[in-house]
Amino acid sequence: MKLLRVGPAGQERPVVMDASGALRDIGEPEIDGAFFASGGVARVRAALERGDLPVVEGEGLRVGPPTARPGKIVCIGLNYRDHAAESGLAVPDEPVVFMKAPDTVIGPYDEVLVPRDSVKTDWEVELAVVIGRRARYLDSREEALDVIAGYAISNDVSEREFQLERGGQWDKGKSCETFNPFGPWLVTADEVGDPQDLALRLWVNGELRQDGRTKDMIFDVAEVVRYLSRFMVLEPGDVINTGTPAGVAMGLPGQPYLRAGDVVELEIEGLGRQRQTVGQA
Amino acid sequence: MKLLRVGPAGQERPVVMDASGALRDIGEPEIDGAFFASGGVARVRAALERGDLPVVEGEGLRVGPPTARPGKIVCIGLNYRDHAAESGLAVPDEPVVFMKAPDTVIGPYDEVLVPRDSVKTDWEVELAVVIGRRARYLDSREEALDVIAGYAISNDVSEREFQLERGGQWDKGKSCETFNPFGPWLVTADEVGDPQDLALRLWVNGELRQDGRTKDMIFDVAEVVRYLSRFMVLEPGDVINTGTPAGVAMGLPGQPYLRAGDVVELEIEGLGRQRQTVGQA
Repeated sequence: MKLLRVGPAGQERPVVMDASGALRDIGEPEIDGAFFASGGVARVRAALERGDLPVVEGEGLRVGPPTARPGKIVCIGLNYRDHAAESGLAVPDEPVVFMKAPDTVIGPYDEVLVPRDSVKTDWEVELAVVIGRRARYLDSREEALDVIAGYAISNDVSEREFQLERGGQWDKGKSCETFNPFGPWLVTADEVGDPQDLALRLWVNGELRQDGRTKDMIFDVAEVVRYLSRFMVLEPGDVINTGTPAGVAMGLPGQPYLRAGDVVELEIEGLGRQRQTVGQA
Repeated sequence: MKLLRVGPAGQERPVVMDASGALRDIGEPEIDGAFFASGGVARVRAALERGDLPVVEGEGLRVGPPTARPGKIVCIGLNYRDHAAESGLAVPDEPVVFMKAPDTVIGPYDEVLVPRDSVKTDWEVELAVVIGRRARYLDSREEALDVIAGYAISNDVSEREFQLERGGQWDKGKSCETFNPFGPWLVTADEVGDPQDLALRLWVNGELRQDGRTKDMIFDVAEVVRYLSRFMVLEPGDVINTGTPAGVAMGLPGQPYLRAGDVVELEIEGLGRQRQTVGQA
């Protein structure tokens, strides 16, 4: 099932895309932590099967992020061997964890802004995991997969100078305004099947820059969720960005960082496609 | 003016403490971003002066965090010279920035839990800044001071092994369950006066461990807020933990990290006092 939110920023309306591609009102106030924790996904599925959900005219409507603002966004760094290599950093022994401010989330077709004083704004296509049930101290991979509501695309936009050359921790280059395009849909876990068998691709101005597969993750989705739950409570609606494969600007010849006017497109198999035009803050 | 929230966790009721120490209902649904952004502080002050606010019987009520869960918690690392020295790290050239999960916030007298598999759970008394107005790309110190709603105490509880020895970024040791006792009050900026002239103290089991002054910050409050606004949008209700002076367990002889049964007390001049008993997750 594909859940999404359409309408102007801050006034999105939650809908489900049916088998014919039509949007239908889900009869719930929001797609958020409370929705997931209270069994919202099962309610919408049952209502959809009964034919109870009215069609929403989606023509011309903006697509927003597929969930309300998450409580937190946790990110895994260097989680593909080829990206660790292009970054000139060692393959980690255990997951590298950092955070991204939740207010960086924008819709999948919204404008990404190069921050003021930035010269190294970069892209990262990532499989995003959305948590469906509260999780702490999970012991097994099975328990971990069981708390996942679904998956979506994140562009983990990153300013490399802020992240790596301005003293201290990566977070400084990860939380700039508009730095997490998200969506277009949340695809429920049952429909995605094996999260380790998905192709990820990213283009800049039509040129293919990233072309990976989730099977090449160093720490797979089940391990990432299990691991994180030992260090923090995962709450319904929380988002985990699971890392990016090779092909970011920092690792390419000439380091072609983003500039105003560039167009970034991202795709993950089964999760749809994003497209952002780059602007200047 | 001292704003606080009393009642069971998750059902706190916002109140103001009047000049006599009595609690009064503020006639607003919550102390959160919307409250600050809509001029809630001025409304409460006017109502208090008019004598319009009914007394709330506070006897025996739990004190919760003084604001609803923040959208983000941004932390400044190594912001006191003596703490940088005891950590064996250089004094930074510009602010070190990391994040703490917003769901770590608990009340000032709630139990702090040592995480499972933790052997290095540590304390940090910090001046917390609460943002009152949306801020991006601030140019001056004056603008920065102008977006601050008020101040409170944070205990930036930290697991040093998770933070420093488990690969990667500090965030891994900063976001464990219960790791941000907050409060007891939000003291509005006008009542605090100069935020660089406050004494901070922390005791463990009655023994004084930290004894600093905010005048010894490397980057002061105005500079921290101005600086952060160049890297991320600061939103009403966001919290900034501005760093801790020397005297954490990591820097003390024998490294007396926290264990179940320990009692931590924190005090900042004009901002009240916290007291936590330590438990085991």
